[in-house]
Amino acid sequence: MIAEEVGVHVSTVSRVLTAADADVSRWAAPNTAERIRDTARKRGYHRNVYASNLRTARSNLVGVIVPRLQDFVLATVYEGIEEAAIENGLSTFVTNSLDREEDQRTRTEMMLERRVGGLIFGDAHLDNPFLDEIRSRGVPTVLVSRHSGDHVSVTCNDYLGGRLVGEHLLALGRRDVAILAGMSFASTGQDRTQGVIDAYRDAGILIPPDRVVHGGFDAAGGRAGAEAILATRKYPDAIFATNDFAAIGALGVLRDRGLSVPDDVALVGYNDTPLAREMMVPLTTVRSPMHQMGRRALEMLISVMDGKTISSERLDPTLIIRTSTSARADETG
Amino acid sequence: MIAEEVGVHVSTVSRVLTAADADVSRWAAPNTAERIRDTARKRGYHRNVYASNLRTARSNLVGVIVPRLQDFVLATVYEGIEEAAIENGLSTFVTNSLDREEDQRTRTEMMLERRVGGLIFGDAHLDNPFLDEIRSRGVPTVLVSRHSGDHVSVTCNDYLGGRLVGEHLLALGRRDVAILAGMSFASTGQDRTQGVIDAYRDAGILIPPDRVVHGGFDAAGGRAGAEAILATRKYPDAIFATNDFAAIGALGVLRDRGLSVPDDVALVGYNDTPLAREMMVPLTTVRSPMHQMGRRALEMLISVMDGKTISSERLDPTLIIRTSTSARADETG
Repeated sequence: MIAEEVGVHVSTVSRVLTAADADVSRWAAPNTAERIRDTARKRGYHRNVYASNLRTARSNLVGVIVPRLQDFVLATVYEGIEEAAIENGLSTFVTNSLDREEDQRTRTEMMLERRVGGLIFGDAHLDNPFLDEIRSRGVPTVLVSRHSGDHVSVTCNDYLGGRLVGEHLLALGRRDVAILAGMSFASTGQDRTQGVIDAYRDAGILIPPDRVVHGGFDAAGGRAGAEAILATRKYPDAIFATNDFAAIGALGVLRDRGLSVPDDVALVGYNDTPLAREMMVPLTTVRSPMHQMGRRALEMLISVMDGKTISSERLDPTLIIRTSTSARADETG
Repeated sequence: MIAEEVGVHVSTVSRVLTAADADVSRWAAPNTAERIRDTARKRGYHRNVYASNLRTARSNLVGVIVPRLQDFVLATVYEGIEEAAIENGLSTFVTNSLDREEDQRTRTEMMLERRVGGLIFGDAHLDNPFLDEIRSRGVPTVLVSRHSGDHVSVTCNDYLGGRLVGEHLLALGRRDVAILAGMSFASTGQDRTQGVIDAYRDAGILIPPDRVVHGGFDAAGGRAGAEAILATRKYPDAIFATNDFAAIGALGVLRDRGLSVPDDVALVGYNDTPLAREMMVPLTTVRSPMHQMGRRALEMLISVMDGKTISSERLDPTLIIRTSTSARADETG
């Protein structure tokens, strides 16, 4: 403890370390303040920008980091965040990390320099010491869309979404499914994939490892994944893309090969973006509450900023059956 | 002049009016500062936040206002802005105005309160006194994607893009085109539409007013527009949607009516988003340099912030011909 080492009360340490430079003299004599700061530095203490913010007009700024706003899903989550922020008198600041760890780090530091009062991460990786580090610095944080470790998050119940897809395909008699699983560091793709795998396993079918392909969640990623799947052995009778845009990329590949949807290959996406229903072959998909997730992330962050202890939340997905899996499908919901 | 009225040097007025509250006492006695501020208020003076910024570390913040990041086009433009900003040691701050004038105003004020050094507007309306007002307050500003009045902008040459579409459809013998023109306040939709109208007029064909329908640039807008067109008289032999997503919405309507693309109706989009080539019927569209537009907007804003006088720029579009207009199309462009 710094307080013990310097011989002052713990609240003095806290005040000195979180005060703006000009205010330090309110809390401790110059010598004492200097010793507190030296000791903190030696112990690798990072200045707790958040605590300082509580005393400034700038704490009403919330930073949001997403992989890429080009992704309709994250743009929609962000709209939910922004909407709830405005309602709560906060303003938001969003940036793309492109899922690159270096960018996650530099963009986060940039946000902290701007004295954000809290951060929402939409780009969490499953194994991410960086998030632990941010937490240890006392920055209020909520994850959205993806979960990681024991960090507080609001996500879609992606595992359930995957199970719904698996059970639907099994009910249609599709026994050889290939999965475009997305990036392996993202809980979304991993949980959706695991849901399908478990549904098939429960039906006595083990999905072979080469039927699961990792890659981008966008149209280009879906195209590359579908090409990899179709390059190997006989084509599967179903493809589950863990994102609608990847499904559309896969659709282009199926079209190029002259394979028909759903007769040859049933196709399922995820998120029910507005394009899904407009496709020439309307796309079966899983509706995720993107906007609502964003709103909850902001509301939960406010609780964290208020010092409350809160739990992670998982919102329910809905399977939307359309023609791409079942030629006679009427839209259900 | 405030300086004359109060009886101080002009530099004192400038310093008092641009200083942070806590710093005013450095520049004038309390009474004098009060009189300067009162006089300024009476004269309708707006605090010139930009001038203040030049003296703070916060001038390296650039504000970006777009209609909606959900729109892939604007999200891509924003990526270009952000990329160029990072290269130039600036950071960016983006918000959605949803094209609502009230939100444009409040979000801009929010940006100015955050002491941005300049603003990029992606949501300019053709008739927009608000932009003149912002300019009169001395805020460095660049428009991107849409132009308005004589404000400095970087756009795609949308009129040329429209002409290319019109000439292509005419060459295919399509003489009855309907246009999903987008929102009437956006130069993008207006210029693209006018390009088609002029190409047809040059070929001796006047496009009737009821063949031009205004509405949203997204899938829902395209669906509504196509429904309006098909609800009237005989279906047209071509539909030009001024946005790929609107084209996809129109495609859903054509599918619902059992009309085939391109045999019954040729379909053209705009922007060449990654989905266009993946559609079951690959979409003819106009490629616009979205990312490059964003980069140039940021670079031009830096010039404006440096006090340079610069001209608007228009980047060239490219027609990409695919199966949705010409069943035998190989990809060109």
